[in-house]
Amino acid sequence: MSREGFRATVLTLYPEMFPGPLGISLAGKALNEGAWSLETVQIRDFATDKHRMVDDTPAGGGAGMVMKPDVLGRAVDHVADGRPKLFMSPRGKPLTQERVRQLADGPGAIILCGRFEGVDERLIEARQFEEVSIGDYILSGGETAAIVVLDAVVRLLPGVMGNALSGETESFETGLLEHPHYTKPQEWEGRRIPDVLLSGNHGAIEKWRRAEAERLTRERRQDLWDAHGKRTKR
Amino acid sequence: MSREGFRATVLTLYPEMFPGPLGISLAGKALNEGAWSLETVQIRDFATDKHRMVDDTPAGGGAGMVMKPDVLGRAVDHVADGRPKLFMSPRGKPLTQERVRQLADGPGAIILCGRFEGVDERLIEARQFEEVSIGDYILSGGETAAIVVLDAVVRLLPGVMGNALSGETESFETGLLEHPHYTKPQEWEGRRIPDVLLSGNHGAIEKWRRAEAERLTRERRQDLWDAHGKRTKR
Repeated sequence: MSREGFRATVLTLYPEMFPGPLGISLAGKALNEGAWSLETVQIRDFATDKHRMVDDTPAGGGAGMVMKPDVLGRAVDHVADGRPKLFMSPRGKPLTQERVRQLADGPGAIILCGRFEGVDERLIEARQFEEVSIGDYILSGGETAAIVVLDAVVRLLPGVMGNALSGETESFETGLLEHPHYTKPQEWEGRRIPDVLLSGNHGAIEKWRRAEAERLTRERRQDLWDAHGKRTKR
Repeated sequence: MSREGFRATVLTLYPEMFPGPLGISLAGKALNEGAWSLETVQIRDFATDKHRMVDDTPAGGGAGMVMKPDVLGRAVDHVADGRPKLFMSPRGKPLTQERVRQLADGPGAIILCGRFEGVDERLIEARQFEEVSIGDYILSGGETAAIVVLDAVVRLLPGVMGNALSGETESFETGLLEHPHYTKPQEWEGRRIPDVLLSGNHGAIEKWRRAEAERLTRERRQDLWDAHGKRTKR
């Protein structure tokens, strides 16, 4: 059975930002090989007035501009076909690896990149956008966030990473941070690779890595550690 | 008093990913105007063996490759000058707007982009890298994360955004998600802008926006809402 590749459509005022870093290395190779496709839509092409206005002042006053629902509605309707519709926004649900995996298992995504002042709320409601946040910080626009989402998704697509993937995703799915890594040389600037990793004792190595992953998670991310505790108690 | 612009140095195996989206729009304009500078360092230039190897198999076995501490050490030492040294990693401390602001107030940053399998732990320790995570998902490498950090920082640099900034950052600093935005037309697809926003009553508008910000935060982000409650009780 042939599976059509993941299809990404990005609605943006800056289509020239794409593919950008996604055209290089892993994602770029996958793009060239057809594991995924990337289409950009210039939102401004859907403005109908003579000035091709895409934004206007906020109702109720305040700084900045708000993207117009009529223009965005036409742009979205031009490409909507049942794929998930994401709106990149610091108000959105925080992106998780689980959501990344769901997206990678699906047909693709339509990603709307807004300006930081935001888009008209009616557009989000009427077109049922899923608001997605990549983190608790503010970007100049949704474009760099869209690049992050697509980078995370593309590496999970069939054939893109091969075997290298399996171990690492499992470790993420335990909900723990990854254990420390070491490689040659055995001693560097007086610092040695931990003896256990050179012992050849696979059981001891796994035990050490697990303990380190738990220690790091506990020390650095109490939130993940608490969630991990709840999950393993089930 | 003249203030030298923010200086970013990115250590990467893919310098051609930069400036990428950072060369366009707000960040690109600021780059051209000298509000910040961006230098990339090809890590491979610091490999000394004939194959220019930058990574090797993980001590103790397992999938993937680990970046070598000796090569990375030389690359970092070539550019280190007291600026904060960030290593982009899902094991790191989650990036916050507060940290973004601190970085923007400083002289710049040296950002190390690793491959997802990781870099030798001794390098992180010996060169005292700050591990920074942009979110709980896995990318193909640190490059797209570095682009996000720089996008967030650059918009805060003096002169880059001007007045548009003030209101919006304050709202972020209250620890609440932003209220919904609306703009013309007054009615779109049968959906109207909320009456209060058209009332001209600035007190009522501020009250509505505050209530909406609180509602959204409570509904979507219990973690932020709890933190907000603790802060306002002080």
